[in-house]
Amino acid sequence: MSGPLNVTDLAADLIRHPSVSPDPGESQLALGAILSAMGFTVTHLPFGEGAERTPNLFARLGTGAPHLCFAGHTDVVPPGSAGWTHGPYAGEVADGRLYGRGACDMKGGIAAFVAAVSAFLADHPEPRGSISLLITGDEEGPARFGTLKVLEWMQAHDQIPDFCVVGEPTNPTQMGEVIKIGRRGSINARITVNGRQGHVAYPHRADNPVHRLLRILNALTTEPLDSGSEWFEPSSLQVTSIDVGNPATNVIPARASAALNIRFNELHTGAALAGWISTICQRYAPGAVVETQISGESFVTKPGPEVDALATAVRTVTGREPRLDTGGGTSDARFIALYCPVAEFGLVGTSMHQVDEHVSVDDLRALTLIYEDLLKRMVA
Amino acid sequence: MSGPLNVTDLAADLIRHPSVSPDPGESQLALGAILSAMGFTVTHLPFGEGAERTPNLFARLGTGAPHLCFAGHTDVVPPGSAGWTHGPYAGEVADGRLYGRGACDMKGGIAAFVAAVSAFLADHPEPRGSISLLITGDEEGPARFGTLKVLEWMQAHDQIPDFCVVGEPTNPTQMGEVIKIGRRGSINARITVNGRQGHVAYPHRADNPVHRLLRILNALTTEPLDSGSEWFEPSSLQVTSIDVGNPATNVIPARASAALNIRFNELHTGAALAGWISTICQRYAPGAVVETQISGESFVTKPGPEVDALATAVRTVTGREPRLDTGGGTSDARFIALYCPVAEFGLVGTSMHQVDEHVSVDDLRALTLIYEDLLKRMVA
Repeated sequence: MSGPLNVTDLAADLIRHPSVSPDPGESQLALGAILSAMGFTVTHLPFGEGAERTPNLFARLGTGAPHLCFAGHTDVVPPGSAGWTHGPYAGEVADGRLYGRGACDMKGGIAAFVAAVSAFLADHPEPRGSISLLITGDEEGPARFGTLKVLEWMQAHDQIPDFCVVGEPTNPTQMGEVIKIGRRGSINARITVNGRQGHVAYPHRADNPVHRLLRILNALTTEPLDSGSEWFEPSSLQVTSIDVGNPATNVIPARASAALNIRFNELHTGAALAGWISTICQRYAPGAVVETQISGESFVTKPGPEVDALATAVRTVTGREPRLDTGGGTSDARFIALYCPVAEFGLVGTSMHQVDEHVSVDDLRALTLIYEDLLKRMVA
Repeated sequence: MSGPLNVTDLAADLIRHPSVSPDPGESQLALGAILSAMGFTVTHLPFGEGAERTPNLFARLGTGAPHLCFAGHTDVVPPGSAGWTHGPYAGEVADGRLYGRGACDMKGGIAAFVAAVSAFLADHPEPRGSISLLITGDEEGPARFGTLKVLEWMQAHDQIPDFCVVGEPTNPTQMGEVIKIGRRGSINARITVNGRQGHVAYPHRADNPVHRLLRILNALTTEPLDSGSEWFEPSSLQVTSIDVGNPATNVIPARASAALNIRFNELHTGAALAGWISTICQRYAPGAVVETQISGESFVTKPGPEVDALATAVRTVTGREPRLDTGGGTSDARFIALYCPVAEFGLVGTSMHQVDEHVSVDDLRALTLIYEDLLKRMVA
């Protein structure tokens, strides 16, 4: 090779492969070629059929321990309708920023993985440990045929790493602020109460489903679920919609429904919360229909040598002490946490999912240095 | 005149004048002609302009005391789309029933007023007291230019009666069951809570209007308003709709609204209830928008000589002891109650507002006899 790879060029190349979720796959073919040239054993792992077909990639360099894995996704959210000052797939640099869909979420992070490994190998051609990349093409979508399936394959092929770093944008405003060491779980519920329609002047001949639903929602929201734990904020239940749609002011409606979401910490499980919701519903509205969907359980990788190494790398490069955080939304780290310790650290997420998504070229360089520093601390 | 008028013929003639609310007026011209021929002084009293123009009629026979007034409306609700086995405006008799829109609500009642007076006058050509009819063409609609305005005119012209009988269908299943001596008041409220939209994963950055609305509705519905009174059932508050319309399960919405109706007895006033609702709203959601509309205050005509005379007439003709009731919906009696004692007694309401509205010819005859009996007891 003719010297370490340039992170900005790598990120721009990835942006130029449009890959709205699920990624059609070209970006991963390009990435696989680069990794092969660096000496990685690259395995393309498409899962799912038809419209759900999802390209995935697992690449490993070496077989020694410890095994450090970088995880991420090549798929992106749609660019939206208009208003981009630089083409969403042009990969243009202007005023020290790289523009394009995926710049920070998270083609920039993948480019930093590759550039960091490239720089690390230039100084350490024969590392003690091994390095891998777990790349999916469906993190922004249903995520059914992505990281989840690759992990099953990795388990079956004895490729589970000792530590995994997910390159999602974790920093609210500047590099070095936040390492995520866990996430809350998430459960959605839809509650439908059927009553008996009637005239408001004769309530005894009707059974108002709105009043039953009110009792349910009041019971679910009056008391806090918990007061937080060592690594988590308090769990939070939010009623996101109530829908009756009855335009007649003199009619008691036949049906009322509500939707809610709970973000929960490790003091709960999705199944226990689903059971609690059902119990409350049956108490106030026997026969209520409760549909629940658990998007993920809570998880936390408690500080230890691996998280410490990452935090030290962040501090060394940025001069900032990163906060160890478990807030915010979900990511594929929820799947990885079932197999090995995992932490998330990436770029600044301010412009993610927005028009004119961009990342500072300086931040791309800093992230590359952080990952390189972590490689030195763990696998040199 | 060639003998007393036939109640079924009178009712059928009125049905044949289509008069979906507000009545265009022909039915009242026909009615006025009949009353003039019987010796009434007939005054047509149209109020309102343009689309709101409402025909009304006041007719009085004699000037003596006591003055007994029969009140009702010629307007009807729309026939609906299809399914009538007899034309809604054909006025056909089949199997002992008169079919048509308004048969029981309440052209049949008006026909009974007229037939009863006709029969009474045949036996009592020079009664001691006087008789009047207060007929509006907008009871089923907004009722802004109907009975309300006629009463103002009657007041100004010294025509307020000593007792008024409204001929609305009051009997649930057979003649003689129920005399209504009052009605509950009614107030509608719409509550809109504005919050701050946000992601469910970051509830502290948002302000969930659904939770505030839940607190409000819970406070409004947890305790009964009262436990009823001598003449009234307990007041009843029914939440008729809650509308958020947020399809996104991960978004806290910006706005939530609810509609409710209270049917209240004489332990409350509309204004006091509106104030109570506003106070609760401001407690849990400062800035909540509360729109209230008072459709009517509660009223009751406590039993006395007039109600006793009506109950005796019902008992004499039907052999049943009528229940004195204050339940059900509103009627124009709420306006009349502000001026004089008022009670409601009419036909069987089973088919009112439905397809194939009809009334039994026997019931029409019975109602005529009851009104005639009341005339004998009060004004002979």
